[in-house]
Amino acid sequence: MRAEIIAIGSELLSPWRLDTNSLFITEHLNRIGVRVWRKTIVGDRFEDLEAVFSSALQEAEIVFCIGGLGPTKDDITREVVAAVLDRKLEMNQQALRHLEKRYARIGVPMTPNNLQQAMVPEGGEVMPNPNGTAPGLFLRQDGRLVFLLPGPPHELKAMVVDQVLDLIARHHVPAPLIYRHLKIASEGESRVDHLVSPIYKSYDQVETTILASAGIVDLFFYWTQPADVDRSGPVLEELTRRVKEALGPSVYTEGEHTLEEVTGGLLREKGKTLATAESCTGGFLGKLLTDVSGSSDYYLGGMVTYSNEAKSAWLGVDVRLIEEHGAVSPEVARAMAERVRIVAGSDIGLSTTGIAGPTGATAEKPLGLVYIGIADQAGSETRKLQLPGDREIVRLRSARIAIDWLRRRLL
Amino acid sequence: MRAEIIAIGSELLSPWRLDTNSLFITEHLNRIGVRVWRKTIVGDRFEDLEAVFSSALQEAEIVFCIGGLGPTKDDITREVVAAVLDRKLEMNQQALRHLEKRYARIGVPMTPNNLQQAMVPEGGEVMPNPNGTAPGLFLRQDGRLVFLLPGPPHELKAMVVDQVLDLIARHHVPAPLIYRHLKIASEGESRVDHLVSPIYKSYDQVETTILASAGIVDLFFYWTQPADVDRSGPVLEELTRRVKEALGPSVYTEGEHTLEEVTGGLLREKGKTLATAESCTGGFLGKLLTDVSGSSDYYLGGMVTYSNEAKSAWLGVDVRLIEEHGAVSPEVARAMAERVRIVAGSDIGLSTTGIAGPTGATAEKPLGLVYIGIADQAGSETRKLQLPGDREIVRLRSARIAIDWLRRRLL
Repeated sequence: MRAEIIAIGSELLSPWRLDTNSLFITEHLNRIGVRVWRKTIVGDRFEDLEAVFSSALQEAEIVFCIGGLGPTKDDITREVVAAVLDRKLEMNQQALRHLEKRYARIGVPMTPNNLQQAMVPEGGEVMPNPNGTAPGLFLRQDGRLVFLLPGPPHELKAMVVDQVLDLIARHHVPAPLIYRHLKIASEGESRVDHLVSPIYKSYDQVETTILASAGIVDLFFYWTQPADVDRSGPVLEELTRRVKEALGPSVYTEGEHTLEEVTGGLLREKGKTLATAESCTGGFLGKLLTDVSGSSDYYLGGMVTYSNEAKSAWLGVDVRLIEEHGAVSPEVARAMAERVRIVAGSDIGLSTTGIAGPTGATAEKPLGLVYIGIADQAGSETRKLQLPGDREIVRLRSARIAIDWLRRRLL
Repeated sequence: MRAEIIAIGSELLSPWRLDTNSLFITEHLNRIGVRVWRKTIVGDRFEDLEAVFSSALQEAEIVFCIGGLGPTKDDITREVVAAVLDRKLEMNQQALRHLEKRYARIGVPMTPNNLQQAMVPEGGEVMPNPNGTAPGLFLRQDGRLVFLLPGPPHELKAMVVDQVLDLIARHHVPAPLIYRHLKIASEGESRVDHLVSPIYKSYDQVETTILASAGIVDLFFYWTQPADVDRSGPVLEELTRRVKEALGPSVYTEGEHTLEEVTGGLLREKGKTLATAESCTGGFLGKLLTDVSGSSDYYLGGMVTYSNEAKSAWLGVDVRLIEEHGAVSPEVARAMAERVRIVAGSDIGLSTTGIAGPTGATAEKPLGLVYIGIADQAGSETRKLQLPGDREIVRLRSARIAIDWLRRRLL
């Protein structure tokens, strides 16, 4: 079964906005075996949406139209869908009552424009929107399913999870997508492929996808034989076992956890506490670690010692060390990790110092040169990184590699 | 003139990847007066791309096909375009030499597959790719312009800036988009619209767009009368002056600078230094401030006092204050700002403490409750925020509102 997602709104054709709703919808569709074959982003013109929706109806079994359900004259989704399906728009009493209640609750008077949101193409089923005024709509045409959903992500997400999936299940026997997902840190995409392609190439029944992004590589193994589901378990099991053997500790999870969650879990499990001392990452390392709810169990805090004075005054890094080797040096990275561990009274200290760019590089210390340091009761160590990318990417990679290094030491 | 952008690749139809290249292309097209009317994302199947490309050729004057130019059997863009335009694919000598040089330089042997990248539809013009193996292609058909570009962003961006815009200019007189862009912090979208719609509604020649994202509102005023360009300057001038009067200091820039850049510029201009003390934001505030290259001129550093012990031991916040009022309280926010200013020896101290969720809320201290504090030579102040959204959004908004508060005090 194939689905098409149409995102509607001129702002989505500007340089400032992306359609992200489709990722959420795709994730949930994939889980019940529905693949998205095409996504289209189109503006608020009647003829433009008409052409796109007509084509989608011919090609896909399930069509999503996202956005354009509000009360303004730019909101044309209902009219276009009614016109293409050749159905009349009718005032729907259930939708009208929902609207009246909603406007009363937020204390805003209803204008005649607002009534537009209660208009439904003949035969359409209203999908209540608990988080907004515009209801969703569900229609069937020649065996095809059409969903009209509001654009605000928190409205859409609730309706997908609570209503859309059930409505699809009424008309379609789900064939869940069977796959394994391995996440790999601190390895490049081509090196991962070099190591694992000799393995996955011998599994005809499995399709492999490799995606890389700023120091994280995602490996997906999809089962391609829906008629032979019973064999999927053992085959995928064997394949992932062999791939994990080839990649060793670079694989940090077989599932949907983040690197920060996995590393935090190890800290909690081993009863260790962590403190950070950051220079070039400027707080990014702490931000990533505290993206995890509950990280206060193991993360005591950190010092963003952006200036040399802060490095010496707050952390107690020897001024002469900075003068002799420079702030971007293995000596200072090591001292930062050692000192923050002592100052914070933590089990482990983690540090970063580098040239994130675009300014600040010299002949000896080029852009993307970063030292990371780690200190624990066994001693301290540093690593030199030479990272590609712009300021944001260099900082993100530095922080991720530092976190992954900590993870490997905890194993 | 309308353009269509087709992004090609099955990974772009997964829940994990978005097409972001189109934003960059759109920005540059808009500057020369070309609007994007539709974006389509399609997989690696011949018939799927064929249908999409044929439709684009009928609707748009400029068509971009992004991706699918590599050496594997999934890379079908060249063949599909040649088939739809009814042209033969020929080996191009210029492209072949580029390929040979490139593979020699990276020390990888060329396989017969790689030759595919030098095949060009009859009459096509090769666009050299300085950052990768796959060259781009430029074709004309019935007055329409077709660009085939590689998918990796750093390859594509260089080719758009250095080649695509010149090729368009050869065949099309640019009609630059005339607009003004105001950026507004710490105000909601509906309040901004309420304040400014009475003003912009009286300007028929101007189209207004309002976009909001986690505490920042973008206001765009587009000139809609290309035949009457001479009047655009004075009219947009008057409109933005009136809007800025209505919004006051909430407008932080008329241009493309970020809130952090504008605030950093004010600190530098006034010769003031800043230090931060973060609890709930966990380093996010420091990360945003140091997103700006050169921020070491005014940002001394910060303390991420995630635990209560760090708040008292590092910053010297009175333990009794935390016991009496809790870590999430105006008293502690104030003490954090005052203490970090003293410890760092900075002119200004800025602090955050709050409940970012999803856990940690109580009846008295709900999710999204955040206190921010500021201290300078004139004294200290706190603000209470009650923020909607998930953990990431609450933390981002907290940090942005704190930075904007600092900016307003510096005015």
